[in-house]
Amino acid sequence: MALDTPLDPVQLTADLIRCPSVTPDEAGALALLERVLTKAGFVCVRVDRNGTPNLFARWGKKAAARSLGFNGHTDVVPVGDLAAWTHDPFGGEIADGLLWGRGATDMKSGVAAFVAAACDYATQTQPKDDAIIITITGDEEGDATDGTIALLDWMAQNGEAMSDCLVGEPTCPNTMGEMMKIGRRGSLTAYFTARGIQGHVAYPHQTHNPVPVLARLMADLSAHTLDQGTAHFDPSNLEVTTFDTGNPATNVVPALCQATVNIRFNDAHSGASLSEWLRAKAARMAKETGIEIEVRFSISGESFLTPPGAFVNLVARSVETVTGLRPELSTTGGTSDARFVKNHCPVVEFGLVGKTMHKVDEQVPVSQIEDLKRVYSRLIGDYFA
Amino acid sequence: MALDTPLDPVQLTADLIRCPSVTPDEAGALALLERVLTKAGFVCVRVDRNGTPNLFARWGKKAAARSLGFNGHTDVVPVGDLAAWTHDPFGGEIADGLLWGRGATDMKSGVAAFVAAACDYATQTQPKDDAIIITITGDEEGDATDGTIALLDWMAQNGEAMSDCLVGEPTCPNTMGEMMKIGRRGSLTAYFTARGIQGHVAYPHQTHNPVPVLARLMADLSAHTLDQGTAHFDPSNLEVTTFDTGNPATNVVPALCQATVNIRFNDAHSGASLSEWLRAKAARMAKETGIEIEVRFSISGESFLTPPGAFVNLVARSVETVTGLRPELSTTGGTSDARFVKNHCPVVEFGLVGKTMHKVDEQVPVSQIEDLKRVYSRLIGDYFA
Ligand SMILES: [Zn+2]
Ligand SMILES: [Zn+2]
Repeated sequence: MALDTPLDPVQLTADLIRCPSVTPDEAGALALLERVLTKAGFVCVRVDRNGTPNLFARWGKKAAARSLGFNGHTDVVPVGDLAAWTHDPFGGEIADGLLWGRGATDMKSGVAAFVAAACDYATQTQPKDDAIIITITGDEEGDATDGTIALLDWMAQNGEAMSDCLVGEPTCPNTMGEMMKIGRRGSLTAYFTARGIQGHVAYPHQTHNPVPVLARLMADLSAHTLDQGTAHFDPSNLEVTTFDTGNPATNVVPALCQATVNIRFNDAHSGASLSEWLRAKAARMAKETGIEIEVRFSISGESFLTPPGAFVNLVARSVETVTGLRPELSTTGGTSDARFVKNHCPVVEFGLVGKTMHKVDEQVPVSQIEDLKRVYSRLIGDYFA
Repeated sequence: MALDTPLDPVQLTADLIRCPSVTPDEAGALALLERVLTKAGFVCVRVDRNGTPNLFARWGKKAAARSLGFNGHTDVVPVGDLAAWTHDPFGGEIADGLLWGRGATDMKSGVAAFVAAACDYATQTQPKDDAIIITITGDEEGDATDGTIALLDWMAQNGEAMSDCLVGEPTCPNTMGEMMKIGRRGSLTAYFTARGIQGHVAYPHQTHNPVPVLARLMADLSAHTLDQGTAHFDPSNLEVTTFDTGNPATNVVPALCQATVNIRFNDAHSGASLSEWLRAKAARMAKETGIEIEVRFSISGESFLTPPGAFVNLVARSVETVTGLRPELSTTGGTSDARFVKNHCPVVEFGLVGKTMHKVDEQVPVSQIEDLKRVYSRLIGDYFA
């Protein structure tokens, strides 16, 4: 395989789309990237853990003074309704200036763009006391327990480190260049179970209905203002995502009901502080009503922030130079693997427009992929300048 | 078939239990009663409607000056866990002074007791300007749309009428004679559906969650005091019997949720007044929140009362004479076919202890069946005296 430079990020994205790498299948995507990076002079190591495929690649010196990281994933969500696609989701077809397929925006284009930018730089430059480190996982869309975490664990054990890291997830709502992410909200899920005494509605004194009690608790929690937002974050938000009883008998008071609450929270809170608050609210309601209320928590990520500073400014300037837009420094949206990278080094996210991600007919303008590579190339150049 | 008088109500109950008349099967139960009543001089007519078996029987003059009615049902609920029964549920076995089987309390014993009392009276008396009218349905435990209602419809069309009626359902919580029913609460069921806008929890501004809104409405309704009770009724009572969403995704705000409310209401309310109140509460909540809330109603019976007076006193005195207990005049408990009879004539209910009704090992002391027949015999004698 000959490496033509400059590397075409559109072609590389199309090649990646042709690998049907639905989580947890690697489907040749990481193997392709490993070949490309190796050709460009990167040291590559497959860091698979518990069957999850991961790729580590470094150009330049180990434990260098300045080491720029790129992180991304090659796994994609399932195609959904295959019949509804107007192009083969794994065909990598280009039509009308658009590249079609599953992963076109999330995020084979992002991976292709930073791999192409890094390979160009690596093949044109002699490394000094610096390095480019690329970490790519095959499990970001799944439960992610052996993906980027495994790569970071392996790096720590092997003396590999990044000074800063960019995650190439799509970050722009509508227009290329308008937004980058400098943090993310945390996410906590709380599972409530309320228990009372079952019985016939005609004999209410022999029953104790848990439904209105849990309903009141859910209404109270929803009405509570968690905060007004902080310097870099929107207000935290609580949603009751489900409330279930499953009692088909209209003449029976049920014994049990359940509700689930999800909170997306900013840096005014932590998973621990919110768990404590929810537990206290449930306990107070239980004490007041005599209905037993149990709560179980699952914290899928704490909030984090990479404060505006040298690295954030460097990324923002690269975006502005290429797109003409000064990107908004946002902390909105769902979670990404940046929640893991932030424990390792400062991390920001910048990628293209994510509008069609996870949808039928996922697609991206080829010009956006080219622009994205330009942004990353500019960043690499400026970072080591 | 020879009719031995006095008729043994225990034997008749056992014979009825041997007919496995689980709703909607007649299983020979009505046919047996028709034979017994005919022998005693009753005019019998099978008033089946839409496949539901019903039996009308009259002794004495049509459109008599005084006509005493008895109403009951021979259908029974399913046996449930057959293996858990210690006696054949359709065996009609007597052991340790108890008669065992499905329908032993609800209400083959009640039917046998009033049929036996009526047959004794009919075979020993010459009718003057009076009548005994017996209506027995094979569908009280089912949806009851073609049971006692069909009998009453047929009677109205055929010039048959009752001056007063006794329903022989079990009415005593623990001790034979302690309670009779002079009315029943009404029952209304309201089905709520709340609709909002589905979406990802990370983008709350693009969603509108119906769950906390319906939760607040259910908590409000449950906290409301409908009344403090009335002269003959306990306070009305509202229960939220179920609340369901069925959303398994903790990162998704659901579009829809549903809740069901059942109200058992006294004579301070009507099905219409409560529907109006619930509709207004839902509309106010919908207006305040922008969540669409739909309500559907099902009124399975209005409340009714046969005020204490001549007939109520006659029944109470019959009970007291036989059992030594002055029965409490109650309006508690679930619904019965008295809710239909009350549109036709004054109606009260008296029967034996219902503790084991609808349960495994349903059984009744044979002495209670004998006492019940004595109460009914006494009532018939006094009614026509
Ligand atoms: Zn992604
Ligand atoms: Zn019954």
